[in-house]
Amino acid sequence: MSNTETATNIDVVMQQAFDAFNQYKKLSPDKRAAFLETMADEIEKLRDQLVPVANEETNLPAARLNGEISRTTGQLKMFATLIKEGSWVEASIDTADAGRTPPRPGIRKMLVPVGPVIVFGASNFPFAFSTAGGDTASALASGSSVVIKAHPAHPKTSALVFTAMQTAIINSGVPQYTVQHVTDTSNEAGKALVTHPYTKGVGFTGSFAGGKALVEYASQREIPIPVFAEMSSINPVVFYPDTLSKNAEALATQYAASITLGAGQFCTNPGLLLGIKSDGFDHFLQALGKEITKVQPQKMLHSGICSSYKKALSQMQQQQGLEVIAQSSAAANDMEAGAILATVTGNDFLGNAHFLEEVFGPYSLAVICDDKDQLMQCLQKLKGQLTSSVMATEKDIEEYADVIDLQHTLAGRILLNNAPTGVEVCASMVHGGPYPATTDARFTSVGTTAIKRWVRPICLQNFNDNMLPDALKNNNPLGILRLVNNVYTREAVNE
Amino acid sequence: MSNTETATNIDVVMQQAFDAFNQYKKLSPDKRAAFLETMADEIEKLRDQLVPVANEETNLPAARLNGEISRTTGQLKMFATLIKEGSWVEASIDTADAGRTPPRPGIRKMLVPVGPVIVFGASNFPFAFSTAGGDTASALASGSSVVIKAHPAHPKTSALVFTAMQTAIINSGVPQYTVQHVTDTSNEAGKALVTHPYTKGVGFTGSFAGGKALVEYASQREIPIPVFAEMSSINPVVFYPDTLSKNAEALATQYAASITLGAGQFCTNPGLLLGIKSDGFDHFLQALGKEITKVQPQKMLHSGICSSYKKALSQMQQQQGLEVIAQSSAAANDMEAGAILATVTGNDFLGNAHFLEEVFGPYSLAVICDDKDQLMQCLQKLKGQLTSSVMATEKDIEEYADVIDLQHTLAGRILLNNAPTGVEVCASMVHGGPYPATTDARFTSVGTTAIKRWVRPICLQNFNDNMLPDALKNNNPLGILRLVNNVYTREAVNE
Repeated sequence: MSNTETATNIDVVMQQAFDAFNQYKKLSPDKRAAFLETMADEIEKLRDQLVPVANEETNLPAARLNGEISRTTGQLKMFATLIKEGSWVEASIDTADAGRTPPRPGIRKMLVPVGPVIVFGASNFPFAFSTAGGDTASALASGSSVVIKAHPAHPKTSALVFTAMQTAIINSGVPQYTVQHVTDTSNEAGKALVTHPYTKGVGFTGSFAGGKALVEYASQREIPIPVFAEMSSINPVVFYPDTLSKNAEALATQYAASITLGAGQFCTNPGLLLGIKSDGFDHFLQALGKEITKVQPQKMLHSGICSSYKKALSQMQQQQGLEVIAQSSAAANDMEAGAILATVTGNDFLGNAHFLEEVFGPYSLAVICDDKDQLMQCLQKLKGQLTSSVMATEKDIEEYADVIDLQHTLAGRILLNNAPTGVEVCASMVHGGPYPATTDARFTSVGTTAIKRWVRPICLQNFNDNMLPDALKNNNPLGILRLVNNVYTREAVNE
Repeated sequence: MSNTETATNIDVVMQQAFDAFNQYKKLSPDKRAAFLETMADEIEKLRDQLVPVANEETNLPAARLNGEISRTTGQLKMFATLIKEGSWVEASIDTADAGRTPPRPGIRKMLVPVGPVIVFGASNFPFAFSTAGGDTASALASGSSVVIKAHPAHPKTSALVFTAMQTAIINSGVPQYTVQHVTDTSNEAGKALVTHPYTKGVGFTGSFAGGKALVEYASQREIPIPVFAEMSSINPVVFYPDTLSKNAEALATQYAASITLGAGQFCTNPGLLLGIKSDGFDHFLQALGKEITKVQPQKMLHSGICSSYKKALSQMQQQQGLEVIAQSSAAANDMEAGAILATVTGNDFLGNAHFLEEVFGPYSLAVICDDKDQLMQCLQKLKGQLTSSVMATEKDIEEYADVIDLQHTLAGRILLNNAPTGVEVCASMVHGGPYPATTDARFTSVGTTAIKRWVRPICLQNFNDNMLPDALKNNNPLGILRLVNNVYTREAVNE
């Protein structure tokens, strides 16, 4: 397909998305919620077809894919529940005061959807971060229309999910082009979508290079738009001395599982393990190494990811001071990745920025620091992360309070004695973090507040009650929580 | 001062800002609130000195300056009240569920300050948008430290306000460098502040060129940071036919005052008046013109702004189709600006993008449209705005619902039968809007939610209660409103 043809098609798609948005945004929250619920039901109906298709395209096992489908339909229903409840719009009311000098006008505020959103499917989550995944669900819940750019690694899965979405569109009576599916896999199509004047936001989960390219397209626009890209994270875990002296074996078992889960193809895969040189850390690394040798090589998502993994690994192994201390003992077949554990001294780590790079796959690097000061220095060198894990006893927590403080500044999610893989879908989740983990640490791509990426506040001054949207009317017909003259309440406003 | 010297000084300033931040952020909300209140009191004590100094530097009259000082101290106190109440941190708690498969960890979220913030003083508000203005107040309230870049047009005013802030720092016992004042007026100093690795956010109110430069500096950083720049807005007002036929004289009086308030040097100055060709619109424009001729020329803020106004005006007058229909009849002295009202047909307006540009000063352009369709087309051409005003009767509102819908998409604040000048400082205010009105329509620079510009959410997973910040502890010691397992409550959590 030539550039021109792409641009023309994208123009048609975006005009449809814009027109659909202008109708869709006016639907009641209940109507939008019913649409999301219908979509969840229609996807559920296709479960038995979706699993084998996705397995063929991604090599992910059926149990994992089934779990991911449940997560996807659960997310759709979660957003339906959120918008039916309705308080998420942050309604705020300051009533008029005619007696003040000068008179104070009535001012009311709420969040409104920004308009068409582009969602780029992710390769490592063919359901939960792709076609009908969290970006799409949150954007549709907000009242925005969505254009999905299918991920080229699982086109059949994406197309099949989209048929369920189309059925939901028809059965729910929402505008036909509320959701569209672009199968053109060219970079030109992606660029045309991001740079189109009607586009108002972009969701992306993938590589740093991919995310950065989208940000650059967006910044070239006459009117810049936000790009929410989740890009790269090595998810540092600090193992503190007291817990190492007591729990080395248990920690090794826990982390061997976390490092190698899904062939290490999780954004939250713990790629960097830090500790202070000690018998406890040695013991932990030996035990972890023993677990790693037992790990069976696993098929990666696609050949591109597998060859990237092998290339990144080989580059990493050439770095001064890196020592591989354990790897899967079974040979890796074509497209398979074996697990690998390497070590480096704090000194060598501090001298080489290459160690900060992500190796997407079942690889982890343990940094053996001389002392607490060097551990602090190593942490200070790190880039922004999705997660930062603290493995510590009460004694460690007292003794290393300043190091743990520093760990809080690195990421969007801080874990105490948990492994970072496994991202709960809930209101309190922050799946996001300082750059380059994501492009915008103020937002999350998982959990109910992911909806906040697709809205902006508007305030209405001096409007008559009958002209106000339901969320702002005096009698509070939606029964939502509102801030009224600086007090949170669900009561009606007496004006 | 050479570039090198600037960079060195800025390094010192930013190291101090970073160190102060790491202490200041740990202070209790009550302690931070007391600091803001003390600052308000100290500024109040200097009121009688501040007014003449600011009058000399800005030509703004004493009454206006007194009002602005009250607004400034009021903002400081408003943020103190906000953080004492405490619910603004959006605390969210999802409790653990050990019985689930797999067990659900406890996850808790809240907003935390991002770190040192740079505030650029604004020329048109020497108090409320400058040294101790809304950007500074909201950043300090959030727990961030602040570096103020004094505006070169009112350095004495800025320095004097800063002495009050220094007294407050000492009397409140907050870290010495919680607020710093950079008087170096060079562009290099501004660039060095925005690009410094410790800087985490920027607040700016000024010209489009100035804001754009800061955004470019920020985008050149290895780690991009948000720049909240309020830049340019012509604040369209649509006068609908029925209200024009009934209220032409009253509307003319109201708008003559709004257009010329403070020599038109408000971000919300109504620079564009749109209506459909009719006797009513003619009548309104005649009456408005009559008021405009009576307006006394006023001294502008400084000679640079005055010469920019005259230059922009002269360029505008050269545009095809522009007709000046009224101007101040009294002659303008040096540094003074006379008011001016011009008209253009909808046709000429649609054909020339120059009419979309802001002329900062007491100038307004009336666009006389042939019909409703042309009015829609004119509105569709507009860039993003701070405000969008609807002057309409009930009949107009019914008849022009689609035009009013379009008006909602243009700006952060939509007004019904109000003039846009005058920005209430309250929770429901949105002083912000789509680009280029501001760089980020998702935030406001006025009102309590301005604090949201300087924070990010973090979530804490599997933390023991005694390790959690007060906002997230089970017994809710701050008594704040929290989202607990998806229910808003001030109750303690039973876990």
